[in-house]
Amino acid sequence: MFMKNCWYVAGWSHEVEADALFARTICNKRIVFWRDEAGRLHALDDRCCHRGAPLSIGRKEGNAVRCMYHGFLFDTSGTCIEIPGYAQIPPKARVRSYAVVERSRWIWLWMGDPAQADESLIPDTHWLDDPDWACTQPGRLHYDVNYQLVNDNLLDFSHLSYVHPKTLGGSEEYAQLRSKIERLPRGLRITRWFLDKPPAPFVAKLLQAKGMTGNVDRWNNYDFLLPGVLIMDSGFAPAGSGAQEGNRKDGIEFRHCQVVTPETENTCHYFFAQPRNFDKDSLDVSQALYTSILAAFEEDRGIITAQAENIAAEPSFEPVACGLDAALGQFRAMIARQIALESEEEAAGAMDGSGNVGRRNEAQTA
Amino acid sequence: MFMKNCWYVAGWSHEVEADALFARTICNKRIVFWRDEAGRLHALDDRCCHRGAPLSIGRKEGNAVRCMYHGFLFDTSGTCIEIPGYAQIPPKARVRSYAVVERSRWIWLWMGDPAQADESLIPDTHWLDDPDWACTQPGRLHYDVNYQLVNDNLLDFSHLSYVHPKTLGGSEEYAQLRSKIERLPRGLRITRWFLDKPPAPFVAKLLQAKGMTGNVDRWNNYDFLLPGVLIMDSGFAPAGSGAQEGNRKDGIEFRHCQVVTPETENTCHYFFAQPRNFDKDSLDVSQALYTSILAAFEEDRGIITAQAENIAAEPSFEPVACGLDAALGQFRAMIARQIALESEEEAAGAMDGSGNVGRRNEAQTA
Amino acid sequence: MFMKNCWYVAGWSHEVEADALFARTICNKRIVFWRDEAGRLHALDDRCCHRGAPLSIGRKEGNAVRCMYHGFLFDTSGTCIEIPGYAQIPPKARVRSYAVVERSRWIWLWMGDPAQADESLIPDTHWLDDPDWACTQPGRLHYDVNYQLVNDNLLDFSHLSYVHPKTLGGSEEYAQLRSKIERLPRGLRITRWFLDKPPAPFVAKLLQAKGMTGNVDRWNNYDFLLPGVLIMDSGFAPAGSGAQEGNRKDGIEFRHCQVVTPETENTCHYFFAQPRNFDKDSLDVSQALYTSILAAFEEDRGIITAQAENIAAEPSFEPVACGLDAALGQFRAMIARQIALESEEEAAGAMDGSGNVGRRNEAQTA
Repeated sequence: MFMKNCWYVAGWSHEVEADALFARTICNKRIVFWRDEAGRLHALDDRCCHRGAPLSIGRKEGNAVRCMYHGFLFDTSGTCIEIPGYAQIPPKARVRSYAVVERSRWIWLWMGDPAQADESLIPDTHWLDDPDWACTQPGRLHYDVNYQLVNDNLLDFSHLSYVHPKTLGGSEEYAQLRSKIERLPRGLRITRWFLDKPPAPFVAKLLQAKGMTGNVDRWNNYDFLLPGVLIMDSGFAPAGSGAQEGNRKDGIEFRHCQVVTPETENTCHYFFAQPRNFDKDSLDVSQALYTSILAAFEEDRGIITAQAENIAAEPSFEPVACGLDAALGQFRAMIARQIALESEEEAAGAMDGSGNVGRRNEAQTA
Repeated sequence: MFMKNCWYVAGWSHEVEADALFARTICNKRIVFWRDEAGRLHALDDRCCHRGAPLSIGRKEGNAVRCMYHGFLFDTSGTCIEIPGYAQIPPKARVRSYAVVERSRWIWLWMGDPAQADESLIPDTHWLDDPDWACTQPGRLHYDVNYQLVNDNLLDFSHLSYVHPKTLGGSEEYAQLRSKIERLPRGLRITRWFLDKPPAPFVAKLLQAKGMTGNVDRWNNYDFLLPGVLIMDSGFAPAGSGAQEGNRKDGIEFRHCQVVTPETENTCHYFFAQPRNFDKDSLDVSQALYTSILAAFEEDRGIITAQAENIAAEPSFEPVACGLDAALGQFRAMIARQIALESEEEAAGAMDGSGNVGRRNEAQTA
Repeated sequence: MFMKNCWYVAGWSHEVEADALFARTICNKRIVFWRDEAGRLHALDDRCCHRGAPLSIGRKEGNAVRCMYHGFLFDTSGTCIEIPGYAQIPPKARVRSYAVVERSRWIWLWMGDPAQADESLIPDTHWLDDPDWACTQPGRLHYDVNYQLVNDNLLDFSHLSYVHPKTLGGSEEYAQLRSKIERLPRGLRITRWFLDKPPAPFVAKLLQAKGMTGNVDRWNNYDFLLPGVLIMDSGFAPAGSGAQEGNRKDGIEFRHCQVVTPETENTCHYFFAQPRNFDKDSLDVSQALYTSILAAFEEDRGIITAQAENIAAEPSFEPVACGLDAALGQFRAMIARQIALESEEEAAGAMDGSGNVGRRNEAQTA
């Protein structure tokens, strides 16, 4: 089960090229993406309504897409506009379309009723293409686990000490800290300051090059938003230079943007990039950072995949909760509530006789 | 579910060698084939009744086959005739046998009660070994899809324009044509004439060599018979030379023979060859034709496999029918009716107390 | 379903090294093994109680093991003794521990209540490390079949003639013999003498080197004990030299030790070695014997795997029993009875309100 009425990152803008059809599965739906002649993105179910062949191995024809099994042609709304040899087109001959928006190099996809798609709910990740920030290359990993296990990982940074001792982590003291956790309307705000300690391995050289050779103050302050969007203000400043009080001019700052998007119940996508406010023209720094965080994210993928296999092998397993799980427990509850709410709305929509949940909701929000 | 009381092509005659045991799964049944000392084919369930080991990895002994786990020996009827160390053989010690017939290089297998196996129901494919016709080499493909999706494909040639534009197809006008569809006792007759057009890519060179450089009349007239046998009269003649009225002497003719045989619910076999009435001694022409149709059939396999995966990923998918589906819809209904009929007969056989469906049906047909 | 209250061989002692964590699945339970500082073996569920990560990819710390996801630390009893950043440890924070014993190079694991683990039930396999016997190298095979199919194989040696004609078997006369089968408290005793025949291929050269060039008397006398332990007194002596009457001085003797241990419902482990009382210092003889029995056991694995696939493909298959199946039938019944008995005990334990089956049984056996 997945939330539907929310924006999922479906990929990087550059993945959908001007003249190609692009297939990706999001929340168990196979979806085809393409650009019309004006470059605008469109998304349909990647399944011809006729015999089920994938549209993504079809042919783009102007703004439309043709199924290359028997030649059905669909417009950007998913309506069939041509059946070879047949002048009359059955009204049911259509495939479902999705609301899709490009913003700051990410493709955001609304899995629910397009009429409810509210662009103001798209989180701000402008650092990804803000000229005042330098960004690593676009990152993408694929996980063979349920997306919530990746969310869990991102919601408890105490794992940095054990999973990432030689990359993002460092000292085991980091795990001794407690984060501050605050509730947001659609997520959680997590704040963690780690003061007067040696820097994490992945930035040690960078800091040295900047003359920061001693201990540092480190912060990892992030919002984790539905359905699984992490936007983090993090950085390092000389110990005692007052970063926690707002003076960051001697430090370096990042704005990590990371999203977890379900592919199926047992697989998910992970998209990430790491904007920074220093050494903005240095491709070497960009490459070094990308290599470091990719290595660290592979460490996460290793432990989370092993965890998922281990849980699958023992369906009766029930985790023993402890204080470490406060944030992930709250976020799992938010997702469960949202899914329950959507199910209720759907059931109500079915009961009002309209047989059309979408139109009903459209009326309500109008 | 599969039809049982019909002949399936289980393979090519040459596949079962004189001294070997040959295993193939047909309609979810693992079957072992072998030849007795006189060269006659026999078919049994490929599963020793003792502990279930495959007979096909056993040993041929004269006309019999021995399981090489504990040594049970079976005759051609499937009766156990020796248990090492035990003089007495339990009456239940037998494996099921199947009616099997070789005709025109194909092995035909009756999956139902052998007593009902009526050889007159075997379709005529004599072109496969008729000295008046030249034939391509024996073709075989394996599909990871339900057999009905392959039947569907063969029952609607409008796909030639989209799946095979550079092989069997050619112009998209071909897809604009409607076929004539007629009902046969055990199948459908489909007739399609495509007049005064450039030839299909796969024969263009052959026709050129024969001096046919202009437009041609093309025909694809075939019977598609239960359980999945396509026998096609097809050909090309100079445009306007009167082929449709019966004058074919200036043209070239084929008699495609193609069968779809279920292996399991989700896999099937595809056997094919293409007899022709021209350039009969040319191995080059045989090879060129085989290469072309194999390339085309791989195009089919590509789209059908993608279609099958796409349908499997969305179990709620219901195809939107249109006029293109007339033939495949009728053929699917024929199969469904036949399966339902056989189920009823089986239930009736179980209820009459005889416990022997076969004998009852035998009486009825006698 | 598996028996729990019995000793399974989980592996060879050398597989668990002094400083490493070792993972193996036994009876569907993923288990981590390690040695404490004194070298003593311990076994826990290989699954951190916190979020389910495998302990076997964690870190050994003295006698304890740390999960390397969020740092939970467990002692040898499975009790969590540290949660980073949290002084208070929930009482439920523990993983299950297992009774484990090393004896004669094998690791024996009790899958049931540790309080009931009775070491006197461990079968005697002292030949594996008895200086009076020479042993082949430790053998291990993995099977993709249910363990009972391997037990079946070991309980009917008539297969030697058909599966192993060129290795362990030889003449088909061997299969004509009937074994003597006797009931033991926890298994069966099977006795089979094969008199005055050419020797089996795998020992023919060895016997020749010893001047035994004629026919031999052969014996295969073994106990097959719950849950799947074969201990065999076997050998070859000059025909008529009186081996059956107890005079073995002119012959050669083996004490095969072989165990079948379930991994999952559809996979199992097979551990084996072959002690002998002759040519004790010859590595060449050890190697030749190991090579021969490994080749033979691969023959078993081939036929049993084919059998398992064949049975899985036809769920309705019911084997036709005959006299050959006397021993395997009895042993399967013993396992079924033991599993049923354990289920009853467990249900009774659940009903007495203690919620603790183990303690109840402990009281009973005390």
